[in-house]
Amino acid sequence: MQSRKSGRRRFLEDSAALAGIALGATSLADGQTGSSSDPTLARLKAVHAYGERSHFVDAIRIGNNGLDKPPAGVPRDLGMRSPLQDVVGIITPASLHYMINHNYEPPDIDPQKHRLMIHGMVDRPMIYTVEDLKRLPSVTRVHFVECRANGVPQRKVRTLPNATPQVTHGLSSCSVWTGVPLSLLLRSSGVKKGATWIVAEGADELLHSKSIPLDKAMDDCLVVYGQNGEPVRPEQGYPLRLLVPGYQGINNVKWLRRIKVVDKPYMFKMESDDYAEIRPDGKSRWFDSQMGPNSVIIRPSGGQRLPGRGFYAIHGLAWSGGGSIKRVEVTTDGGKTWKDAEIQQPVHRKAYTAFTFDWDWNGEETLLKSRSTDETGDVQPSVAEYAKIWSLPPGYLESGQGGFTGNFCVIQPWKVKRDGSVENALFS
Amino acid sequence: MQSRKSGRRRFLEDSAALAGIALGATSLADGQTGSSSDPTLARLKAVHAYGERSHFVDAIRIGNNGLDKPPAGVPRDLGMRSPLQDVVGIITPASLHYMINHNYEPPDIDPQKHRLMIHGMVDRPMIYTVEDLKRLPSVTRVHFVECRANGVPQRKVRTLPNATPQVTHGLSSCSVWTGVPLSLLLRSSGVKKGATWIVAEGADELLHSKSIPLDKAMDDCLVVYGQNGEPVRPEQGYPLRLLVPGYQGINNVKWLRRIKVVDKPYMFKMESDDYAEIRPDGKSRWFDSQMGPNSVIIRPSGGQRLPGRGFYAIHGLAWSGGGSIKRVEVTTDGGKTWKDAEIQQPVHRKAYTAFTFDWDWNGEETLLKSRSTDETGDVQPSVAEYAKIWSLPPGYLESGQGGFTGNFCVIQPWKVKRDGSVENALFS
Repeated sequence: MQSRKSGRRRFLEDSAALAGIALGATSLADGQTGSSSDPTLARLKAVHAYGERSHFVDAIRIGNNGLDKPPAGVPRDLGMRSPLQDVVGIITPASLHYMINHNYEPPDIDPQKHRLMIHGMVDRPMIYTVEDLKRLPSVTRVHFVECRANGVPQRKVRTLPNATPQVTHGLSSCSVWTGVPLSLLLRSSGVKKGATWIVAEGADELLHSKSIPLDKAMDDCLVVYGQNGEPVRPEQGYPLRLLVPGYQGINNVKWLRRIKVVDKPYMFKMESDDYAEIRPDGKSRWFDSQMGPNSVIIRPSGGQRLPGRGFYAIHGLAWSGGGSIKRVEVTTDGGKTWKDAEIQQPVHRKAYTAFTFDWDWNGEETLLKSRSTDETGDVQPSVAEYAKIWSLPPGYLESGQGGFTGNFCVIQPWKVKRDGSVENALFS
Repeated sequence: MQSRKSGRRRFLEDSAALAGIALGATSLADGQTGSSSDPTLARLKAVHAYGERSHFVDAIRIGNNGLDKPPAGVPRDLGMRSPLQDVVGIITPASLHYMINHNYEPPDIDPQKHRLMIHGMVDRPMIYTVEDLKRLPSVTRVHFVECRANGVPQRKVRTLPNATPQVTHGLSSCSVWTGVPLSLLLRSSGVKKGATWIVAEGADELLHSKSIPLDKAMDDCLVVYGQNGEPVRPEQGYPLRLLVPGYQGINNVKWLRRIKVVDKPYMFKMESDDYAEIRPDGKSRWFDSQMGPNSVIIRPSGGQRLPGRGFYAIHGLAWSGGGSIKRVEVTTDGGKTWKDAEIQQPVHRKAYTAFTFDWDWNGEETLLKSRSTDETGDVQPSVAEYAKIWSLPPGYLESGQGGFTGNFCVIQPWKVKRDGSVENALFS
């Protein structure tokens, strides 16, 4: 083990020097397809080289702010919501992963030219190419990413009866991520005494930057280059993204190019103003980054219609920034009785967890809800419980007032009407 | 629990009647995007509604028989090999999943019109729509699918020095599959006494059919509608595919439309002729369907080039039809010493399992190999051990003779040359 570690250490220490070397890796199919001029083969290659979904499948992302008319002078977010009602299993197809970019298009980055710098309060500043990172031991983990604003009631569409899970919870997605533990890179650079935070910076046109506690960086953060088995998509940070499991989406810096080790948070606008949790009493909670326990039933859900009374397996998703989902309860009678749902194994930490619940619909109007509990014992709150936790005045959330945008991970009620139609019933 | 089961049972028994009913499920984004005529929103929807990979990413599938010139009169398979050397993690992107169709294009199936019939030796023949199946409890599991012919040495390209993992092992892929346990459907139909096999039939133009033992059907088979979080792709069986975990790919009937419960195997051409394991002594092993323990190092691998001596994390994949991978050993000195690789958790049964191994390359020529062991204790054989197991005469495999195409799951050696280039060295 000693010799392995020393080899890895030596490589890491040499990486700054290596960064400029063209690795000369060959193109993957070079010389393998032969020089056949057979038209059949050419046709096959054209049609099937990189397959597409059936033209009968039409799930798409929809605009974020585009859903509401933003106030005059406020630019639209470049954001797209993921169609959660179409998720099968726990993985969001990369083509449908939600995205929020604050008014910029994803940059078009040549991976051969991209570099990641680790610097600041370290003994050995380093520069890595993407290929350098792929030479290191990799880990693969399933994690959700979620925008802090997911589901907030300040957007009017969130409360409309025809809102689908895409509208109510679509700023959240879950992928299989592959990359290098950030702790490995930081330890290799040698973190100096007194360092307490890191600042991560992206290569987008605004150089989006985020302060993250060093403890979190050393815990379970990853520098990822893979998503769902292929390179991270441009909209999710190609070629490199920081993954900060369970923390507000804004921490997961895309197009990652710099990590600076520092001794205080840098108080960027996004974290001190836009993303501070401002309460009605004017006080803020800064860096309250961990997402709470959440869940949503995706079938049946808003906008769907049941063909008639009878048996339905209720399907849903649960997740928490606090760790594993330990329990999901479902009520099919509007909250009078709650029973445990069946949880799909294996359960991943800080990841979507699929649940099902057998239900016999008797044809009468009712409310369906789900409630998750995570490994820390945190329980997903109702709207009323949420208002109490945050000391919100009565009617505040219902009024659609702005200014408060904490992690609104409340229980989602769906109303099933006698004609089988299903409606959003957030404040029921 | 009693009432739940009875509801599910009643639904299942009513499914034949339900099959003809249009369910009236709404289109997923109906009415949610509003009627905005904002050109920015329109542009966003066009560009990001269904995202694409970076144009710098160029991994593609390559032709199967197209790799070799088939004998006169023998039609090409419509087959494409998956670029295993590009796999990050354990999931094959759906667009790159391998496919073998025996001379037909994937059919273009309207899911609203598609039906699955369960019949034969059952008490209650049933017809399901795709929507009916989605009303049932679903399970999500990670499984590989692999063609029986993966890696066989009868194809000359398999033995060439410049063969990549795509050429040597590319008739294999791994996905997250979501669907309904076949056992649930069979129990709901009531399997009659004396039944011992099922026959599964696809809706392709040749009505590909396969006999599968009833014990296997009741064990862990799935009728899947989901792959990697979205509907199964057309090339993998949209809208329904039978998944037979750990068995030769040909059992995983695509475009599934019928399952007949019977009392003997039906001896279709594909299973009694093409897919019988014919040994040099003329004897066959029929229905020897379970894939053995396999593994391959994907980085470094054939066609790649190391930039210089120093540290490399060796990355590889292991899998077995026998269950979980329990151990992977790696040698970096051509077999003199073997050491345990680190296995990525969680390990899924009958699924790709990622492993890494820290390696300090001293710049000298060497051979890299990996060897997997599954939960049953089965160990991946060397070429010599494989020849012994199958009583093959000396030089038989090396000669490239046809006629024998058993599951060739042998240890794969990669030769690293002093200039850093890596070559296929199958018979080393």
